[in-house]
Amino acid sequence: MENQQAYDRGTTIFSPDGRLYQVEYAREAVGQGAPVVGVRGDDAVVLAAAPDAGSPLVETDSIEKLHRVDDHLAVGTAGHAADARRLVDIARQTAQEERVRYEEPMPADALATALADHVQERTQTGGARPYGTALLVAGTTEYPTLVEVDPSGATREWRASALGDGAPDAQDYLEDAYRAGLSAADAEALARDALDAAAGDDHPTETVTVTASGAAFGER
Amino acid sequence: MENQQAYDRGTTIFSPDGRLYQVEYAREAVGQGAPVVGVRGDDAVVLAAAPDAGSPLVETDSIEKLHRVDDHLAVGTAGHAADARRLVDIARQTAQEERVRYEEPMPADALATALADHVQERTQTGGARPYGTALLVAGTTEYPTLVEVDPSGATREWRASALGDGAPDAQDYLEDAYRAGLSAADAEALARDALDAAAGDDHPTETVTVTASGAAFGER
Amino acid sequence: MENQQAYDRGTTIFSPDGRLYQVEYAREAVGQGAPVVGVRGDDAVVLAAAPDAGSPLVETDSIEKLHRVDDHLAVGTAGHAADARRLVDIARQTAQEERVRYEEPMPADALATALADHVQERTQTGGARPYGTALLVAGTTEYPTLVEVDPSGATREWRASALGDGAPDAQDYLEDAYRAGLSAADAEALARDALDAAAGDDHPTETVTVTASGAAFGER
Amino acid sequence: MENQQAYDRGTTIFSPDGRLYQVEYAREAVGQGAPVVGVRGDDAVVLAAAPDAGSPLVETDSIEKLHRVDDHLAVGTAGHAADARRLVDIARQTAQEERVRYEEPMPADALATALADHVQERTQTGGARPYGTALLVAGTTEYPTLVEVDPSGATREWRASALGDGAPDAQDYLEDAYRAGLSAADAEALARDALDAAAGDDHPTETVTVTASGAAFGER
Amino acid sequence: MENQQAYDRGTTIFSPDGRLYQVEYAREAVGQGAPVVGVRGDDAVVLAAAPDAGSPLVETDSIEKLHRVDDHLAVGTAGHAADARRLVDIARQTAQEERVRYEEPMPADALATALADHVQERTQTGGARPYGTALLVAGTTEYPTLVEVDPSGATREWRASALGDGAPDAQDYLEDAYRAGLSAADAEALARDALDAAAGDDHPTETVTVTASGAAFGER
Amino acid sequence: MENQQAYDRGTTIFSPDGRLYQVEYAREAVGQGAPVVGVRGDDAVVLAAAPDAGSPLVETDSIEKLHRVDDHLAVGTAGHAADARRLVDIARQTAQEERVRYEEPMPADALATALADHVQERTQTGGARPYGTALLVAGTTEYPTLVEVDPSGATREWRASALGDGAPDAQDYLEDAYRAGLSAADAEALARDALDAAAGDDHPTETVTVTASGAAFGER
Amino acid sequence: MENQQAYDRGTTIFSPDGRLYQVEYAREAVGQGAPVVGVRGDDAVVLAAAPDAGSPLVETDSIEKLHRVDDHLAVGTAGHAADARRLVDIARQTAQEERVRYEEPMPADALATALADHVQERTQTGGARPYGTALLVAGTTEYPTLVEVDPSGATREWRASALGDGAPDAQDYLEDAYRAGLSAADAEALARDALDAAAGDDHPTETVTVTASGAAFGER
Repeated sequence: MENQQAYDRGTTIFSPDGRLYQVEYAREAVGQGAPVVGVRGDDAVVLAAAPDAGSPLVETDSIEKLHRVDDHLAVGTAGHAADARRLVDIARQTAQEERVRYEEPMPADALATALADHVQERTQTGGARPYGTALLVAGTTEYPTLVEVDPSGATREWRASALGDGAPDAQDYLEDAYRAGLSAADAEALARDALDAAAGDDHPTETVTVTASGAAFGER
Repeated sequence: MENQQAYDRGTTIFSPDGRLYQVEYAREAVGQGAPVVGVRGDDAVVLAAAPDAGSPLVETDSIEKLHRVDDHLAVGTAGHAADARRLVDIARQTAQEERVRYEEPMPADALATALADHVQERTQTGGARPYGTALLVAGTTEYPTLVEVDPSGATREWRASALGDGAPDAQDYLEDAYRAGLSAADAEALARDALDAAAGDDHPTETVTVTASGAAFGER
Repeated sequence: MENQQAYDRGTTIFSPDGRLYQVEYAREAVGQGAPVVGVRGDDAVVLAAAPDAGSPLVETDSIEKLHRVDDHLAVGTAGHAADARRLVDIARQTAQEERVRYEEPMPADALATALADHVQERTQTGGARPYGTALLVAGTTEYPTLVEVDPSGATREWRASALGDGAPDAQDYLEDAYRAGLSAADAEALARDALDAAAGDDHPTETVTVTASGAAFGER
Repeated sequence: MENQQAYDRGTTIFSPDGRLYQVEYAREAVGQGAPVVGVRGDDAVVLAAAPDAGSPLVETDSIEKLHRVDDHLAVGTAGHAADARRLVDIARQTAQEERVRYEEPMPADALATALADHVQERTQTGGARPYGTALLVAGTTEYPTLVEVDPSGATREWRASALGDGAPDAQDYLEDAYRAGLSAADAEALARDALDAAAGDDHPTETVTVTASGAAFGER
Repeated sequence: MENQQAYDRGTTIFSPDGRLYQVEYAREAVGQGAPVVGVRGDDAVVLAAAPDAGSPLVETDSIEKLHRVDDHLAVGTAGHAADARRLVDIARQTAQEERVRYEEPMPADALATALADHVQERTQTGGARPYGTALLVAGTTEYPTLVEVDPSGATREWRASALGDGAPDAQDYLEDAYRAGLSAADAEALARDALDAAAGDDHPTETVTVTASGAAFGER
Repeated sequence: MENQQAYDRGTTIFSPDGRLYQVEYAREAVGQGAPVVGVRGDDAVVLAAAPDAGSPLVETDSIEKLHRVDDHLAVGTAGHAADARRLVDIARQTAQEERVRYEEPMPADALATALADHVQERTQTGGARPYGTALLVAGTTEYPTLVEVDPSGATREWRASALGDGAPDAQDYLEDAYRAGLSAADAEALARDALDAAAGDDHPTETVTVTASGAAFGER
Repeated sequence: MENQQAYDRGTTIFSPDGRLYQVEYAREAVGQGAPVVGVRGDDAVVLAAAPDAGSPLVETDSIEKLHRVDDHLAVGTAGHAADARRLVDIARQTAQEERVRYEEPMPADALATALADHVQERTQTGGARPYGTALLVAGTTEYPTLVEVDPSGATREWRASALGDGAPDAQDYLEDAYRAGLSAADAEALARDALDAAAGDDHPTETVTVTASGAAFGER
């Protein structure tokens, strides 16, 4: 414990075993956030999330876990809510600028890389903490794409993935149940089931299905 | 205790369990401030507060808990008084700039997001402490809206909510007594009752009722 | 004691119970300064102070506790003398700029808010300590006004108030003896009596009476 | 252990025995990354890597260990993935700028020096940590070249080299099996065998063969 | 002792009892410097000092304790010699600028306030230590004036005052022996006697007598 | 050991016995680097070095210990390899700029002073560590010159000198064997023998002979 | 010892007894440097120094202790060699600028003050250490002048003075043997004898004699 404390203060630096503790602690913040699941089908990517309102008087719609970024791009977030909003703002601005500059929609992997570059900077430059948020970027331009951005600024492309509280259970479910060639409806059904594996059966569910035609948010 | 101290000094960084202690301590400052309650009705949002003068020689009117931001926007604050005044200044300037730029009044959720972005920055950038204040933003443009901004920079939209000293009791009261379709008068009555649940029966009460026609401050 | 030390160094940050220790220590500096009392009458605000020369060879006139800011504005200070002088400089410059800009005298509450904004910044931005001074701002434009600015940057409007060494005794005296509708002469008498409650009977006394006609300094 | 802690915090400074601990810890991060091997033949340099997907649902193609930088330049990375992406971005931008400025392709050793200069700065200037990534730069302009850049910013030119988890075993294998005058195909075979020495027999393998004609990525 | 250490490092901050330790330590530096005495007469202010050469080979004239600032202004210093020279430089530059701007000589109290503002800044802004020097500013424009500036940036006007090593003894002597209406010659005699009370009988003495006609340095 | 730690962190400051520990630790880094020897003859300066490849697969040519700076200028380095490369870059740029400005080649002592000024800055300004490298600057313009630059930024001109691992043995050898009036060939032979005294008999040797005609690198 | 450590780190701040430890430690560095002696005669100032080569292979001429600054100005240094070179650079640049601006040579005391102002800044501003060097500035314009600048930035004018290793013995010798009215030759003889008192009889000696006609360096 003593040893760990030495690497927590002030800036993000390496521990003797080559770890960045502040990044690992930020991952803890992600693991405590309400879960989000992504599943890639043949023509669509589906995100599903279980917003955690915390009180019956909260407007559940205002607990945004899934965010429209552009016609064909959505982002799901897990972890520190205020950090997530900031990254989603950056995502929207980036996607809009790219569209204007190149006169075509921004691919999901390019958006994920741009966000990850920003996230990485916060782990290397002094005087700031890492983001306590991980993202699932879902997009469909030529083909459907699902990319994770983690608090270290690393990216991974997934067929299906889960983040947040209960994510290991959801991920186990996905590894068992996922198969290639899913329709949009099947992808949504799988995402919902995996979300239940993480959050139990009794929770509000928010979904978005991203196809080449656009991002369609499901009813709760 | 030793362990906690390690995360309190200098900058806002993550603890091993993914928490931001400085933000949690700022929430303590909010929980010790005089209470404020917000209730959303069908055509109006009502804020009620119990200013804490501390001495019979203080001009109670000068202990501002509820602040007019624009014709249709008001903000209630709980926590560190000087921080609150600064955030209200930013709220007024932001609302005015938006009105000039877009030639229409700023919606309450947009104002809450702008304030929350500013609050979040203070939790991520080094060399500054978080704000020790939480806000209830009340506005009525197309429809009445009540949004909370907390010291982490997170936002939540509420049907009814309480902040500050005694807030848990007031929130319990609201969860029991709230029902949809409240008139402005009923919303004010509910807000006053919830405030009493937090602050007892013997305290000055300040209210503001925000409708599409404007923000009307109640007598004390 | 160990615990407290953790929150004293370097910057002004929150303690686990939501306090800002550096601000509280600055209040200690205020509580050790020579006392100042303010009383608001019907047409005038009176400040009274007991300058502490410390040696018979000091020119008592040079121990300024009460400061003329504009024709209709005066400021009394308690605490760290050099910090007080700096805030009085800012007060004079602010009042003059406002008068030039708006072509009318600055109200006392507006001046207090401007000073408090500056004081608050020193409690939130790193690399600087708070001001070790509290102020009583006295002004009479449309009506007499008495506003306190404390080291946190909070403001409160008072009918009568005391700051500095012995302030609790003076405040008790004021709460007993104050009544509405005081003439300027009665307000001065009350201020002098309250000052004696704080500083004893044997001390030099400095007064200023601020009416719509101007700020008149009393003889010592 | 106590002694070591003293040199880990804040900035990269010397220990009494002339070591830079933060740089050595960054090397630990390199040693834990998935392995990469480089072999220089007569007309080609071959890089081989074993991407570590970590889950069957990850798109292995998205775990980039080998990166095309220009027609005749490729980079293999080991260590912190987000740091690696940033250095590869800098590599691509640098190679492109040089090509535009000098109207000829950038040699591999010049690119390695440019990257190493950037990496060295992060070990000398305060307020930032070193890069947790080492690189193998492979290029063929006049002749095939293989250069390592390590987290200290040092460069070494190799006939054959391995980085990352299992690198000592792979390096032993290379020292035994390497001989001069390898064809491109033989170089690739040796690189694959050395990679197996590091990562075992059961892993995906990614290769790139860099000749004067360009960089050809092998199938996995 | 442990407790005190906590407030000594890095920046000038408040202790729990409202003190600024770095300022108090700077006063210690003043108390160890060679003494300086000031006495105000009816038409003149006299400063007297006992320069401490430390070696018979030092040119005593080069140990400046009393400094001409303008025709009618002189400054005596006690404490850290290099800090004193810097403040005297600032005094000369300030007095010259004021004379040019207002076309009349700068009063001693205005100069003292300008210097004190600069000294105060060093006690509030991070990254710098306070000045280890106190000043006696002596001037005669309309009437003779003697003002002290201490390391906190506070000012006090004196009829007669002593600073530096032995100052309490000199001050006691002055309180006994001072009387109103002193001629320039009597003021100098009193200043010399008070200096002897601080420094003993065997020391070089430097004096300056500041009248409306100018500053006349005495022989040693 | 405790005592020493106090002077190692953050910035380069003095220890109670007037030492700069960070500079001494940087000298340790120099003492662990592969050795370099310099010998000045009548018409030439010779540098000899034993590059430490560390593996048979390293291209020894890429382990640069001796660097051409200009036609008549070479630099040998010992210590931290990446720091050395940076200083050599600065040397080349400085020599080129001087040649352009003054239209004549830069003397070796002028180059050494320019480099030493840069090295000294890193020992006095906060937020950076010293260079972990020492240099031997060899040049022949009017006459042959050999100058050492150490990590403190001090310079010394030598007839013959050794740096790096085994330097004390090489220096002893030089003090015994050096004599005035050496030809270029004799200087090289002496440099090689001294290098063997430091590094043993079995090591690659790199030499450069700097005469007025240019810098000639020897075969290994 | 514990207590002292508290004032050594980071910046130059006061200790409870009003001392600046970093400045005192810098004086230790001066006391360990090779000695330098200055003697003022009727028409000349003479500096003498014992350069410490440390090895028979060092070119003693390159160990500069005495430096020509202008025709009539020389500087002797003791302490940290690289810091000394930097201050001498500043001295030369300052003297040249003054000569160009005022079209007459700069007096030695003015140069000493300019250097001392620069040295003082390093003791008051954070983020830098003091200079580990003291200077003897020798100049002859109207009359010969010898001024010391110490690491605190204080200046003293001397008839004769010694700095560096053995300085107390040299100073004792000077206090015994110095007499007024020395010719240039007698001043040099005295300086040489005092240097022997500090450094023994067996050392190289470097001298410079500064008269109105210029600075003449003696043979070694």
